[in-house]
Amino acid sequence: MSDYLDKVNWTSEGLVPVIAQEHSTGKVLMFAWMNREALKLTVETGQAVYWSRSRNKLWHKGEESGHVQKVHDIRLDCDEDVILIIVEQIGGIACHTGRHNCFFKKLENDDWVVDQPVIKDTNEIYHHE
Amino acid sequence: MSDYLDKVNWTSEGLVPVIAQEHSTGKVLMFAWMNREALKLTVETGQAVYWSRSRNKLWHKGEESGHVQKVHDIRLDCDEDVILIIVEQIGGIACHTGRHNCFFKKLENDDWVVDQPVIKDTNEIYHHE
Repeated sequence: MSDYLDKVNWTSEGLVPVIAQEHSTGKVLMFAWMNREALKLTVETGQAVYWSRSRNKLWHKGEESGHVQKVHDIRLDCDEDVILIIVEQIGGIACHTGRHNCFFKKLENDDWVVDQPVIKDTNEIYHHE
Repeated sequence: MSDYLDKVNWTSEGLVPVIAQEHSTGKVLMFAWMNREALKLTVETGQAVYWSRSRNKLWHKGEESGHVQKVHDIRLDCDEDVILIIVEQIGGIACHTGRHNCFFKKLENDDWVVDQPVIKDTNEIYHHE
């Protein structure tokens, strides 16, 4: 059964935009893309799997950092071309900069101002022995 | 002063994806796109103005229905290519189907199930004398 995959209006590149929102706080954590395989894997494993457009491959979020996203709900919008996933963010860090979420720049007086702290240094997150 | 517009990494079509989140509830209302002019107008007017890719023109959200979005915050993500706006949704209806928000289909047992009511009939919303 993968009819739900056919219901999605994929872009011409076979992708769908995805918004990840934190279950406990309601904060929007990040924005990414999925292809069919990524959505299928997300459903089957219960963890967010995206399609990395820069690396051109499947991206199991947190595979390196351990900051995986456990999926509570998967939602589709009215036009069936945008997905919203409600997740538990393991480690409390969704952003590759070491911040809680990716939307840490706020427009103030016509300037983008960082207003969220780095929780963990990126060298510590991505360092491998 | 419009340097903040230059900071945005616009797509090759000159657009940026935008997530609209409700200030009072934290609900994700909808997903749309802006171009430079749309973002500039959003900042200047304090109401969400998008770029309609289907109609290929500026779209002052709520111009027909009255369901405008008053903008509280405008945020930019780490890669500076996604915008999150925190809004007050006038009329409590963001979706053109007459529902509170656009993400009213939930994946359950490999099927998309509608779990949010229509608040106002679309004929009533868009009817003109």
